[in-house]
Amino acid sequence: MIPELPFEPAMELAGIFVGALSGGLAAVRKKFDVFGVLVLAWAAGLGGGLMRDVLIGAIPPVAIADWLFIATALAGGVAMYFFHPRLERARRMIAVLDAGSLALFAVVGTIKGLQYDSGVVAAIFVGTITGVGGGVLRDLLSAEVPAVLHHRELYAIPALVGAAATALLWEGGLLTSGTSAVVVAVVFGLRLIAMRFHLNAPGPWQERPRSRSRSG
Amino acid sequence: MIPELPFEPAMELAGIFVGALSGGLAAVRKKFDVFGVLVLAWAAGLGGGLMRDVLIGAIPPVAIADWLFIATALAGGVAMYFFHPRLERARRMIAVLDAGSLALFAVVGTIKGLQYDSGVVAAIFVGTITGVGGGVLRDLLSAEVPAVLHHRELYAIPALVGAAATALLWEGGLLTSGTSAVVVAVVFGLRLIAMRFHLNAPGPWQERPRSRSRSG
Amino acid sequence: MIPELPFEPAMELAGIFVGALSGGLAAVRKKFDVFGVLVLAWAAGLGGGLMRDVLIGAIPPVAIADWLFIATALAGGVAMYFFHPRLERARRMIAVLDAGSLALFAVVGTIKGLQYDSGVVAAIFVGTITGVGGGVLRDLLSAEVPAVLHHRELYAIPALVGAAATALLWEGGLLTSGTSAVVVAVVFGLRLIAMRFHLNAPGPWQERPRSRSRSG
Repeated sequence: MIPELPFEPAMELAGIFVGALSGGLAAVRKKFDVFGVLVLAWAAGLGGGLMRDVLIGAIPPVAIADWLFIATALAGGVAMYFFHPRLERARRMIAVLDAGSLALFAVVGTIKGLQYDSGVVAAIFVGTITGVGGGVLRDLLSAEVPAVLHHRELYAIPALVGAAATALLWEGGLLTSGTSAVVVAVVFGLRLIAMRFHLNAPGPWQERPRSRSRSG
Repeated sequence: MIPELPFEPAMELAGIFVGALSGGLAAVRKKFDVFGVLVLAWAAGLGGGLMRDVLIGAIPPVAIADWLFIATALAGGVAMYFFHPRLERARRMIAVLDAGSLALFAVVGTIKGLQYDSGVVAAIFVGTITGVGGGVLRDLLSAEVPAVLHHRELYAIPALVGAAATALLWEGGLLTSGTSAVVVAVVFGLRLIAMRFHLNAPGPWQERPRSRSRSG
Repeated sequence: MIPELPFEPAMELAGIFVGALSGGLAAVRKKFDVFGVLVLAWAAGLGGGLMRDVLIGAIPPVAIADWLFIATALAGGVAMYFFHPRLERARRMIAVLDAGSLALFAVVGTIKGLQYDSGVVAAIFVGTITGVGGGVLRDLLSAEVPAVLHHRELYAIPALVGAAATALLWEGGLLTSGTSAVVVAVVFGLRLIAMRFHLNAPGPWQERPRSRSRSG
């Protein structure tokens, strides 16, 4: 009933690698040493899956137990440590890859939640967390407010949509490799559209015109 | 042996809602977008229970699995997003409600710890964490030092007293709906007294008179 | 097959106490009240074991369930609260004790991971986390970037070496009280050498001479 996604393993590794690049970049900017770069790469690439696995009881989490996943994340950190001036120039490409990993993580994470009998609501939650959690852990370890919480083109919403669609398809007995792939593609597209047209979630209420009596 | 608290469900929802208001307020002040407001409302309303459930092995945690709890927390966030100027003026009332939820969370959290066979020490710990953990998660996600750690009228101590009293009553075979309600009332009263008379835990040692040679 | 370390209990308590001193010191410097001092002492002394136990499924974690461990951590906090001017002068001695606890935590943490069937990779991870996690939790609760991530004499690397050596000895059927003690001694020595000669992990790439065209 729960599909094996044929494209999953390679894509998941790509997602981990891209996430790790974002962690390595944050560490390089903070002037962490090489150990800090590797830790932030690991956190950004695998932190979402780590939170998911703790929340659904998949112990030990793959983030600390799967050497291929870990090696992939560390490779992302090493790449950013050595090549970050060049990689910074490739930010547009990295952002597109990141959209792909967001989409895949959300769907794969939701499916894993369903496989562990977490129920539909928890599966949607952990799917979304799998998508955005790596960035949250990266930012917390950098003593920054998680980027996903403040103004930014829609990032968590596409992941949430994808997780909800995956869970509802499963509820309806319609979750297959094919429909999963469609959901991944839709989330990927939503994220690209949000980036292209700078779509933001509504900002703080008091910034709106009706509060024009406020200054500053 | 472990009591069903008759007033529990409604009060627990009230506690989640009030906690969520505090999270939404923190997010509005930080100028998070609407998604950030909802996340911080969820974190503040349900973060204590999330930590408790992970620590006692109640997987998946109700914070991600119970749609009524989640909807209540999100409702608190929505309310703060739309009405925060008015709600800020109602801060006194919110603080009183928050004292009620602190009291209830501490007792309910301890009971859940006992139900999961965590032992008395761990049950007292998770009861206290249930009471104060939401605020801690809210502050960590805001990149702030948790308010409960620095100068503030006694906040964690009443929760700790309530958790310890609940666990000891259980140890003595005296934990009933009636005695639980008494503990909730005592914790609520302690917190109100601490607010009314600005009772603080002892501050840092070097601020005391004997250090009068220090300036600044 | 998995050894009982004869020196373990006393040493583990010593390690918790020393870790708690570092947490208490951080809290005193941040001018937390006495409750904050105790929480940070607990976090620094027991946070590594807390993360380990959640990650390997040892529920409830000893950090919240073992009253002797908890009392030891709180004693460290109380000691720092009352005696911190004197203890600050003893920093050199505390740093040496801390090196001892790092070594012991790494080995003991790895063994516990192996005992819970986490596999070699996860055991190495949780061993390292047991060694450095207390400091990470202490810094996160202080809204600081974890010290282990940025420039500092090698700290996590000795723990990682010790965890890996422990796991490999176990894999080869060679883990005994004797070989465990040797690993503890080696990690302790590595850490002391790193302190003595200010050995650092390689810093950020752009600070190197080849980047001399950059200003600022």
